[in-house]
Amino acid sequence: MAGQKRHAEPAAGNGILSRRLLLEGALVAGVAGIGSGASAEPLKVQSWMKIPGAGFAGYGQPSRYEEKLVRLIPPPPNPATQGVGAARTPLQLLDGIITPSGLHFERSHSGIPDIDPEQHRLLIHGLVKRPLVFTVEALHRYPMQSRIAFIECGGNSQALNAPQALPLNVAAIHGVFSCAEWTGVKLSTLLDEAGVDPSARWVIAEGADSAAMSRSIPLAKALDDALVCLYQNGERVRPSNGYPVRLLLPGFEGNMNVKWLRRLKLAAEPAMTKDETSKYTILLRDEKAWQFVFPMEVKSIITRPSPGLALKGPGFYEISGLAWSGNGSIRQVDVSADGGQSWARAALHAPILPMAPVRFRAPWQWNGGPAVLQSRAIDDTGAVQPTRGAFAAERGLRGVYHYNAIASWRIDEKGEASNAYA
Amino acid sequence: MAGQKRHAEPAAGNGILSRRLLLEGALVAGVAGIGSGASAEPLKVQSWMKIPGAGFAGYGQPSRYEEKLVRLIPPPPNPATQGVGAARTPLQLLDGIITPSGLHFERSHSGIPDIDPEQHRLLIHGLVKRPLVFTVEALHRYPMQSRIAFIECGGNSQALNAPQALPLNVAAIHGVFSCAEWTGVKLSTLLDEAGVDPSARWVIAEGADSAAMSRSIPLAKALDDALVCLYQNGERVRPSNGYPVRLLLPGFEGNMNVKWLRRLKLAAEPAMTKDETSKYTILLRDEKAWQFVFPMEVKSIITRPSPGLALKGPGFYEISGLAWSGNGSIRQVDVSADGGQSWARAALHAPILPMAPVRFRAPWQWNGGPAVLQSRAIDDTGAVQPTRGAFAAERGLRGVYHYNAIASWRIDEKGEASNAYA
Repeated sequence: MAGQKRHAEPAAGNGILSRRLLLEGALVAGVAGIGSGASAEPLKVQSWMKIPGAGFAGYGQPSRYEEKLVRLIPPPPNPATQGVGAARTPLQLLDGIITPSGLHFERSHSGIPDIDPEQHRLLIHGLVKRPLVFTVEALHRYPMQSRIAFIECGGNSQALNAPQALPLNVAAIHGVFSCAEWTGVKLSTLLDEAGVDPSARWVIAEGADSAAMSRSIPLAKALDDALVCLYQNGERVRPSNGYPVRLLLPGFEGNMNVKWLRRLKLAAEPAMTKDETSKYTILLRDEKAWQFVFPMEVKSIITRPSPGLALKGPGFYEISGLAWSGNGSIRQVDVSADGGQSWARAALHAPILPMAPVRFRAPWQWNGGPAVLQSRAIDDTGAVQPTRGAFAAERGLRGVYHYNAIASWRIDEKGEASNAYA
Repeated sequence: MAGQKRHAEPAAGNGILSRRLLLEGALVAGVAGIGSGASAEPLKVQSWMKIPGAGFAGYGQPSRYEEKLVRLIPPPPNPATQGVGAARTPLQLLDGIITPSGLHFERSHSGIPDIDPEQHRLLIHGLVKRPLVFTVEALHRYPMQSRIAFIECGGNSQALNAPQALPLNVAAIHGVFSCAEWTGVKLSTLLDEAGVDPSARWVIAEGADSAAMSRSIPLAKALDDALVCLYQNGERVRPSNGYPVRLLLPGFEGNMNVKWLRRLKLAAEPAMTKDETSKYTILLRDEKAWQFVFPMEVKSIITRPSPGLALKGPGFYEISGLAWSGNGSIRQVDVSADGGQSWARAALHAPILPMAPVRFRAPWQWNGGPAVLQSRAIDDTGAVQPTRGAFAAERGLRGVYHYNAIASWRIDEKGEASNAYA
């Protein structure tokens, strides 16, 4: 029942409180500031209550007051190529785990093709007994599966390779990461129908964009949990995410989840396409490189507080963020307000699913002094998100791809948050 | 590995196959028709591969080829009141469990108010120690929770009360049902801060629409799992679903999940508002009525095949649909192709969450003859979705609200599906 207030339990340094506060959903005596916005001002009858409201729309849109809720679109490397680059999800303005499809990140190598689904075809050929061509309608005849899964661009968070911490926000640093409920046909079902030759080891996937973006995928992954997706968050896949057909390889780097999927060629060897040689290989500190590193490693980010979302005076704040692993499920997330000197466990929200993000939350009593907020995820393989120092010691900081070290937001005495190395 | 084909196992009459087929994800020797759309035609290089694609958009939209993917908007009862009625989710065109926010159903009693979030307030008063007024910004200071939950209008499926089966599709019959990931502040947290008087038993919730839609909610529910929602599918709640603040009462009839929430009054008795007396009471066969029947009972619907989605010749089809219960989680869904004479269990997709829909699927080999498709859900309280006959025997068919009996699609020899009583 209401009224059962508890005293705040410190759980780590610099104001981190026990997650039990959130799990029990009760307020805490002695936590100042949580109700600072509450008052007893009289309630006005606003103008919108005095006139009939608007009628229905076939396909709804966000409020006109939410115009700031858009993807971040950095200028293209070449002004003539507007469709080369990425549009980034404004994760700092979102909550929960689902990314609305209008804000799902998109990474394109030659823009978004305008595909007529009646004309689109998917070819399966190469080392198969029976080459097959599928229409989109034919794909609908097969059994489907649905799953909630993240997609993270292999190059996400690469801004944190910079020698000095750059003044960037969540979208700019971590925004080529999104999550949707994906539905499609298991690739194994289609390969089963084509009949895979025993000599096949790889599947070369090609998109129908004008870059013919192509990646080599291990056959084992294709036969395991790969989905040929037709639906994203309930509706047909969005053009920017591969309409009418995209490949989903749960947990694997985003680039391999080939959009506008038109061709799957079974082969004995990887194709060494431009997209897996000139790009999406990880240059290491010792002049060697990692190629074909597929799963995105365990990682977490704090989305609130974060740059651009200033704290409004000392008091209670919830630290909220996302954790994920391309190797399995999230087991634990820890948070720190003192730059990693002390840690407390965050509360995790159901559902906790493999290759899906988890929303974590931790209660924090900001005393108005400087703080460095960090989060650290652990997945169910036991992998722990590394510090930036440990990450750099292993790989160096020239790798561009698969950056997964602990990130830091520095909070200054005005309550402003900024990207920091700590 | 691919190539391990199995023979189809019949699991119920008239072609229902074992769900193991889906769980194992393998094709089945002897199942004709599944690959009927597959061929070995040459793959063309389409026009969209020959030119750079489109650039990025801040807020993305569906493909221009998906113009049919809109809510169903029946004509309003009075042409002068365009915002009275409901816009229905086209569930037959969706898959998975998430409803994209642009297609989430909306039921409005006086249209959609155009609310400025800076001006909006939420008042908590009545039997409390300390009346409080919250701005939207103040609500953001509190700890939040996220959960995936359905909302079903109390009047959903009422077309099945008609004495003759009407020629309607899924949206027209069952379309005031949708699902989203909702994020907000636990109502118990806010009530805790206001201090609930021991004499309070009810919370009267009022919307800021020009109907001031109001419902009485048991205090126990308010203190249990009620959420004051700010986010829907990651982004801020849509105007048609209550921007900037809506109440979520997981599992309770949709009307109680008050949109545009402006006032919560603690009281000893329910308010007997127009919205819970003239409407949202269930007239029974014996001239009595049920009032304050809150949770939506266990239910399931088949979304594919369904009216308007004709089968294209005999062969393999997947039966796919949604099951839910306002009283808990779905434990089991059975399907029948012979009008309920025989049943087989459907495969259920993770996540299976309380007060959230579950996507179910069952493999079906249509022999080209007549069939009647049904689904029957069982929840974790043991409640079984009733037949239409059993439902009518208990309540009669004048109740308008909370219709949850087993629904039937008749398949004719041309493969057309139609609403039927069987």
